[in-house]
Amino acid sequence: MSQAFQATPASIGSSEFDRDTAVTRRAPGVYDIDLSDGWTIINAVNGGYLLAVLGRALADALPHPDPFTISAHYLTASQPGPAVVRTETVRTGRTLSTGQASLFQYDDQGAEVERIRVLASYGDLGALPDDVRTSARPPAIPPMDQCFGPEDGPAPVPGSSAITDRLMLKLDPATLGWALGAPSGKGEMRAWFGLADGRDADPFSLLLAVDALPPTAFELGLTGWVPTVELTVHIRCRPAPGPLRVAISTRNLAGGFLEEDAEVWDSEDRLVAQSRQLARVRLS
Amino acid sequence: MSQAFQATPASIGSSEFDRDTAVTRRAPGVYDIDLSDGWTIINAVNGGYLLAVLGRALADALPHPDPFTISAHYLTASQPGPAVVRTETVRTGRTLSTGQASLFQYDDQGAEVERIRVLASYGDLGALPDDVRTSARPPAIPPMDQCFGPEDGPAPVPGSSAITDRLMLKLDPATLGWALGAPSGKGEMRAWFGLADGRDADPFSLLLAVDALPPTAFELGLTGWVPTVELTVHIRCRPAPGPLRVAISTRNLAGGFLEEDAEVWDSEDRLVAQSRQLARVRLS
Repeated sequence: MSQAFQATPASIGSSEFDRDTAVTRRAPGVYDIDLSDGWTIINAVNGGYLLAVLGRALADALPHPDPFTISAHYLTASQPGPAVVRTETVRTGRTLSTGQASLFQYDDQGAEVERIRVLASYGDLGALPDDVRTSARPPAIPPMDQCFGPEDGPAPVPGSSAITDRLMLKLDPATLGWALGAPSGKGEMRAWFGLADGRDADPFSLLLAVDALPPTAFELGLTGWVPTVELTVHIRCRPAPGPLRVAISTRNLAGGFLEEDAEVWDSEDRLVAQSRQLARVRLS
Repeated sequence: MSQAFQATPASIGSSEFDRDTAVTRRAPGVYDIDLSDGWTIINAVNGGYLLAVLGRALADALPHPDPFTISAHYLTASQPGPAVVRTETVRTGRTLSTGQASLFQYDDQGAEVERIRVLASYGDLGALPDDVRTSARPPAIPPMDQCFGPEDGPAPVPGSSAITDRLMLKLDPATLGWALGAPSGKGEMRAWFGLADGRDADPFSLLLAVDALPPTAFELGLTGWVPTVELTVHIRCRPAPGPLRVAISTRNLAGGFLEEDAEVWDSEDRLVAQSRQLARVRLS
């Protein structure tokens, strides 16, 4: 199912992820893209991929290069195909700039339908002081060769799972019970994460990483789609080369909604990204 | 310093908090307010108070009454005095609606200067199913009579702290070391929280509650202002009457930024609100 690692890894700027998230500036603040069908899960375009697309447009529009904090409200489901991103510069400062962006697609009459709207503040991660007083610790996850990806078993999720061909995803067996009909009952998901073509992580691929694991809902015994209502990501550090570790937890499943908190750790044990999303569940 | 509890508590709709967060609709999507000087901390207007003001305007503008998730980017510092909130309806749905709002104040020429921009999705908390599978547990905090507020000691924070007169705030002594010159070194802050005039909590006062405690930075030995860059709040449940417990933690102080994760628990042990903010610190 998934390709074997290429002998020559793709590089940042020249990879599947870069090609599929690249936007073309049509005019100031207007960017076109053909949303790829390669980043779908159960026939839905992955929310983290969409956030990366919006993130690229804002990086072009704003004077600072790196997303520091980006908040997205998901309005209607995106489809592979033509889309336009419209950006607005809200404020530019010396160390931070703030922007807004919306992704639209087209209805049968060619009218724009808004899919996602985001607010984001950008800065320069390379300009931050290197003081690190992180008290959080990396997740306890077995070594990669003791973890499992989709290629290690039958496809557990029906429907198009094209995204699994684009990712190197190795799940902690302690969070894989759902795939074997025995969900743990604990709202946790952990995995080693990378891109299948070997491209190293960067701030934009971190936007993908926080939304690329199976839903914690599966381990809570829930099935079906778990659509994201809102997702906020903090990018705290440029990730070092090498695989990432992603740990997600849900502690408040109630009233038909749940939160998913994701932490992304790089190969140098830096907590490079933190996110929280609010998602809807079908109670079962 | 703080008033004693009034013999007759104020009610939701008729209280200091309601009067000071009330907006007047001037036209569709345009709301005026005179920002109160009663909710300042160290001469800055409290960010949670401002979020509640924006939340009220959006509740009027949108067809659903309750904020479910609201993300705010703080652009420039607000001052007590005249302000205008401009709202936009982004999408209305059957169970959720999404809106955007900006708060502006006026410069010397009377031109509008944007202070805060938010995106929010609203719903009806009263319409949620009552299924609760929260695995999080309430914070370990001593009984209220073993906790301490500003009235129990000299003012630890110089400058205008008018907000302390409006709140019933009793801090866990384990998170009060900073006030005695002995910060714990742990990024934690916990308190019992209410409004000084006795008004019970509601979804809008929860927006205040998540940003009304002293900064965790104080317990990390840092001093000075800790301005909020971005704040996302999830309101998950209408709070029951009675005092709230607020627990805040910081686990990733690095590069001149930190995150504060807040949980708000009501008197029925429901996790009624969760928030995360990204804030800037002066390293010392």
